Amino acid sequence: MALIVQKYGGTSVADLKRIRNVAQRVKNTREAGHDVVVVVSARSGVTNRLVSDAHSLHPEPNEREMDMLLTVGEQETIALTAIALHSIGVPAVSRTGAQAGIHTDFAHTRARIVKVTAGDIREQLAQGNVVIVAGFQGVNQHNQITTFGRGGSDLSAIALAASLKADNCQICTDVDGVFTADPRIVGNARKISQISYDEMLELASLGSKVMQSRAVEFAKKFDVEFEVCSSFNNQPGTNVKKEATSMEEVVVRGAAVDKEQVKIVVSQVHDQPGTAAKVFQTLADAKINVDMIVQNIGHGGVANLTFSAPLEDAYRAEKAVGEILDNMGGGKVIAVDRIAKLSVVGVGMRTHCGVAAKLFTALAEAGINIQLISTSEIKISVAIDADKADEGLRLAHDAFELEKNTA
Amino acid sequence: MALIVQKYGGTSVADLKRIRNVAQRVKNTREAGHDVVVVVSARSGVTNRLVSDAHSLHPEPNEREMDMLLTVGEQETIALTAIALHSIGVPAVSRTGAQAGIHTDFAHTRARIVKVTAGDIREQLAQGNVVIVAGFQGVNQHNQITTFGRGGSDLSAIALAASLKADNCQICTDVDGVFTADPRIVGNARKISQISYDEMLELASLGSKVMQSRAVEFAKKFDVEFEVCSSFNNQPGTNVKKEATSMEEVVVRGAAVDKEQVKIVVSQVHDQPGTAAKVFQTLADAKINVDMIVQNIGHGGVANLTFSAPLEDAYRAEKAVGEILDNMGGGKVIAVDRIAKLSVVGVGMRTHCGVAAKLFTALAEAGINIQLISTSEIKISVAIDADKADEGLRLAHDAFELEKNTA
Repeated sequence: MALIVQKYGGTSVADLKRIRNVAQRVKNTREAGHDVVVVVSARSGVTNRLVSDAHSLHPEPNEREMDMLLTVGEQETIALTAIALHSIGVPAVSRTGAQAGIHTDFAHTRARIVKVTAGDIREQLAQGNVVIVAGFQGVNQHNQITTFGRGGSDLSAIALAASLKADNCQICTDVDGVFTADPRIVGNARKISQISYDEMLELASLGSKVMQSRAVEFAKKFDVEFEVCSSFNNQPGTNVKKEATSMEEVVVRGAAVDKEQVKIVVSQVHDQPGTAAKVFQTLADAKINVDMIVQNIGHGGVANLTFSAPLEDAYRAEKAVGEILDNMGGGKVIAVDRIAKLSVVGVGMRTHCGVAAKLFTALAEAGINIQLISTSEIKISVAIDADKADEGLRLAHDAFELEKNTA
Repeated sequence: MALIVQKYGGTSVADLKRIRNVAQRVKNTREAGHDVVVVVSARSGVTNRLVSDAHSLHPEPNEREMDMLLTVGEQETIALTAIALHSIGVPAVSRTGAQAGIHTDFAHTRARIVKVTAGDIREQLAQGNVVIVAGFQGVNQHNQITTFGRGGSDLSAIALAASLKADNCQICTDVDGVFTADPRIVGNARKISQISYDEMLELASLGSKVMQSRAVEFAKKFDVEFEVCSSFNNQPGTNVKKEATSMEEVVVRGAAVDKEQVKIVVSQVHDQPGTAAKVFQTLADAKINVDMIVQNIGHGGVANLTFSAPLEDAYRAEKAVGEILDNMGGGKVIAVDRIAKLSVVGVGMRTHCGVAAKLFTALAEAGINIQLISTSEIKISVAIDADKADEGLRLAHDAFELEKNTA
């Protein structure tokens, strides 16, 4: 008998039929002899409706009140899921984040977990109950409700699995697992059977929207092995775990493309020490996530800085940099192009050469120009034209033969 | 400077426009120099939707889970109301029932308040905040969310007013106050300016749906004077308070009619000691609220029992009595007619004679037959044909000249 934590996201509990489906899956798991703790999100659409109501009332609604407001979504789901389990004869009790002993800091809407006591979950399991916990939420030391930000239910599940020393943690979602690339773009993309935390983190931050990065970071920190799998079938999913030596045999685990990026050029600034520092400090202060950076030294003592940023931050980035250029003796800033950030990820890159060359060659042969480059130990990203995004992803997938089952 | 508790029901916060209206009213009260604690219900429609979802999943959903489910309605409203107040420059914080220190017993869906600490409400008021509290809900000693049943937000408001020793408690609703009769039926019905707790309780139980009886009982017990008034205008409402000697000058305060009643006849039972006891114990065990009772002794040692019950319980009442008749040596039970229960209420009845005679005469002159009668110290109720309900109410209203402003 094992203790299994199962997390079901918003699309998995979207309506009563799907809630019944979740209940049946939980029942099956229990009948296989396991104790089950279920973490659920708000039904899809609920959070958006509440956010929209709040913004109709106030352009920048108070964060504490947003936490009070949004947590009703998960509370609704836990009660309905418990009732659905009762209807098929499974004893079950629901618990809010606070009742499940998920204690956080004071940062409303982006709280960090400081401690998970799990409340009375162990006793409830011992009494034969399934325990259904509201994801996305916790409670701070002042007894105020906090949330972890969008996708935070993944974090709730991982944190509970760590606290309860669960034997298995399943992140059940609307896809079959983590794929070598987005299967909607790359027809022969393949489900990855195992992936390291670091690879998963890189993919999560590169536009693969399967899971919240913070949840993966938490899993890595506490070494919680988990599985990303489908709510709608019983196929094995993707195991996310600590890096093993054998994983390095695969050079590239997966590829991703983020189309919501923009290229910003700061031109004709004085080429003197500290220029880049001032520009990027300004962007950091404005909390803009700058990624790829290139600096060119031009003629006549002027320099150009080029960088990529999320499309949604383009206006704020232009504004922030524009305001400091006058003090710096001139220059221009302009968000020139929407771009796509294409990335390949794999822990095997550490020990294999020629990955960058292979990617650049594949793109060059198709006439796709690389505008910016950034790399880490286990990742190579390039900025390409936005309208070449899908083609680029397919080329990268082919170049590294990701469709072949190598692990 | 006074401390005012204002309660707004579901129709008063039904949509964002009405929530803005509530915020403006609270702001006005605050600008008049008062501290304000606001108690709100779920937006109208929300609770019904949640109940319907639960019943789709299970014919008899678990009561603890129903409390978990339904309390999201109020939690949504408190957050939105706080945000609406912020948008017009009023500092405000929301509190769940648990955070407001509303402690109850363990009876889910019909919990009784055992203690109200008011949490940190006093501190929040001292810091200049309006405090918005989720109505209808509390928390039991095991940290589980409980509710007070439909209309329970009135009880939350009264209980908080008692705990905080508020100077004023306003139950703001979608009517202008308590009327001498339902103005939709009686054209010249008049808003009552003051009414005693007992009169209010009788009217509440007789089909005047302005307030939950338990809230009035609580107010009586702790002597919390309150006002029932409109959310949509600034007219004075109805003050509900301890009975004063002057109140007895008014013989009849108001009249009400309940059209959702049925007359049930148990015929040809043996006329022997204990027959009525058995029948009514059976009905009590089935939790059927029997009101008016008549027993006739017929010929040949058989008796007939006639009583009134809520229409919704007719089938259960017939069934329950039917099952014991065999053991009692025969008899028949049949729910014969839908009837209306017409009542007049007033503390002045204690010291005035002829009230019953005046009511019976008014009905007799119009050819309306009285089928059953019941009385209390401050109330006379009669059962009449259901299709004479409105006419009867108008006749009673006229007979006692309730349209005249006597208090």
